[in-house]
Amino acid sequence: MADILPPGARIGILGGGQLGLMLSLAAARLGYRTAIFCPDPESPAFRACDRFWQASYQDRSALAEFADAVDLISFEFENVPAPSLDFLSARQPIQPGIKALATSQDRMLEKDFLSLLDIPVAPYHDVATAAALADAAQALGYPVIAKTRRLGYDGKGQVRLYGPDCIEAGWTALGSDLVIVEKLIPFDREISIILARARDGSMRHYPPIENRHASGILRSSHLPAQIDENCFEQAISYAHAIATALDYVGILTVEMFVIDDRHEVIVNEIAPRVHNSGHWTIDGAVTSQFEQHIRAICGLPLGASDALGRVRMENLIGDDISHWQKILSDPYAHLHHYGKAAAKPGRKMGHVTWVEPED
Amino acid sequence: MADILPPGARIGILGGGQLGLMLSLAAARLGYRTAIFCPDPESPAFRACDRFWQASYQDRSALAEFADAVDLISFEFENVPAPSLDFLSARQPIQPGIKALATSQDRMLEKDFLSLLDIPVAPYHDVATAAALADAAQALGYPVIAKTRRLGYDGKGQVRLYGPDCIEAGWTALGSDLVIVEKLIPFDREISIILARARDGSMRHYPPIENRHASGILRSSHLPAQIDENCFEQAISYAHAIATALDYVGILTVEMFVIDDRHEVIVNEIAPRVHNSGHWTIDGAVTSQFEQHIRAICGLPLGASDALGRVRMENLIGDDISHWQKILSDPYAHLHHYGKAAAKPGRKMGHVTWVEPED
Repeated sequence: MADILPPGARIGILGGGQLGLMLSLAAARLGYRTAIFCPDPESPAFRACDRFWQASYQDRSALAEFADAVDLISFEFENVPAPSLDFLSARQPIQPGIKALATSQDRMLEKDFLSLLDIPVAPYHDVATAAALADAAQALGYPVIAKTRRLGYDGKGQVRLYGPDCIEAGWTALGSDLVIVEKLIPFDREISIILARARDGSMRHYPPIENRHASGILRSSHLPAQIDENCFEQAISYAHAIATALDYVGILTVEMFVIDDRHEVIVNEIAPRVHNSGHWTIDGAVTSQFEQHIRAICGLPLGASDALGRVRMENLIGDDISHWQKILSDPYAHLHHYGKAAAKPGRKMGHVTWVEPED
Repeated sequence: MADILPPGARIGILGGGQLGLMLSLAAARLGYRTAIFCPDPESPAFRACDRFWQASYQDRSALAEFADAVDLISFEFENVPAPSLDFLSARQPIQPGIKALATSQDRMLEKDFLSLLDIPVAPYHDVATAAALADAAQALGYPVIAKTRRLGYDGKGQVRLYGPDCIEAGWTALGSDLVIVEKLIPFDREISIILARARDGSMRHYPPIENRHASGILRSSHLPAQIDENCFEQAISYAHAIATALDYVGILTVEMFVIDDRHEVIVNEIAPRVHNSGHWTIDGAVTSQFEQHIRAICGLPLGASDALGRVRMENLIGDDISHWQKILSDPYAHLHHYGKAAAKPGRKMGHVTWVEPED
């Protein structure tokens, strides 16, 4: 992977949702072709790519064709099965690398990795039975949050436990015997750091983003984040340390909790990809997270990551999308409509960004 | 065409060059699918669309299929043959309408149209023979510029005549008997006004853009244009008058000459489409010309057209594109690479935009 991948080359992307779509649009600006691989026949990214495969992530023959048609593979979705990734990586380079994927696919490996880097995380234990969960929760002190180690996103695969009487129902709800339990730390705000790391190890981070969630789903992102200088510096240094330790290439997102009065930041989780909390960068930063990712994986230098002003990004979830016309009646609203057919509850259907230049 | 075309619908675009590509990318942001129709198998827009037809503009069966697959037709290329447009318009709405196309496809109709609106243009005559050209040139006073009435762009189909001894060679070079000859007016600068007009007649214009050409091809665009208040007002009012008279829907570009010491603007030509001199709007305006065009033709309200600062856009023509890596080493350079295979001399291969926020 020492060579620069020139425009005209074809980049394979695993996953065809809105992240894949926005990666594809950014790649097209730079003259790259994209090939999308996704099992969902309604994938938004299929509509703006050079080629696509609609097939299961286990379909070896489709994976082989896809790998043959591209010059490099990346992903918008980190839970591609490990054997499929191994199969692909024998055929084409995958960036970010398998190490970052493996680490972030398993919440336990992720916490161990962060702890080794002396990055603060909530105290945690891995448990394999309901009885072990009860013991660990007691030791950590209630309330705790139990999560499946693998395949969790948007608040799925996790349950909060407030006392011993929650254990049985919680264990059943998780439906897995690979579980991690963490102490629920009271925090004041959630932030994310989005960072791009190039092949030569150079890095550019976006300003810290303040995120608001509801029911485990990101509702809105705000910039600048209301955090003090100390928290700002911790957040940036943790993100840099993580990217460097993973020898990461591409966009890395680190979600963190801020405890205001302790001037402290703890890391919640890592996403080895472009991230919903960075959608504002399309309209509100010099270079979007999507273009940064394409630049990094192709071996190009990174663009500037300055914000263009104060920013607010709101997700359009489920029926929110029905207001798209009202949103467009504000001439300063940047609407992104993902063109998905069915507005199921909890489904991300679009987003809107407002950028207010600072004086 | 009273109804709003909702996201999910498919927009047909005639022409698959970089303008078609950038229209397609803007449509995808808003949740629309695009279908591209273009004879060139190497069309950049084929790489980022939902469907495409690679066929001649005369291929009725391909045109019929294309029309059946889309909900609305627009174009990046105004010289689609009139019979093909008639064929398509019987099947699907075409926006901007046939009237704007017919007017701008013929330089003579265009000048007559402008004159009727009392918009100043260079004195002109239409001529059908070399002898008539000689007489008209004499009457206008040398130097003059003779142009084919149809199918001219990027300085093609035109020739400057400095005296009677140029007539024979000039006539031969034009290779047409539908010719317009205009007095060559000395001017200080070239500007363009890019304006969006919505279906309800509302309009938003971008700030005047100052353009520099070489060999008839746009080299760079600059913002703000160095023109006085009087010229500014004339330029905007002419563009508004043209769009209104054409009952125009979409992006309209009006190219003008500015005569500084007379504080006067004269209109050179109209392009009924998104325009090279508006490429800066992708990175340097609240809403890009491409998104404005999609909004207008789909019946949506227009976005704000404020510039984000001082802007410079440079075209990458022919071999200029070989410097793409050097350009990317400036983190504030917004590179757009069209991914075209062969860098022929005079061919537009990409562009770069720099935006410098104003204090």
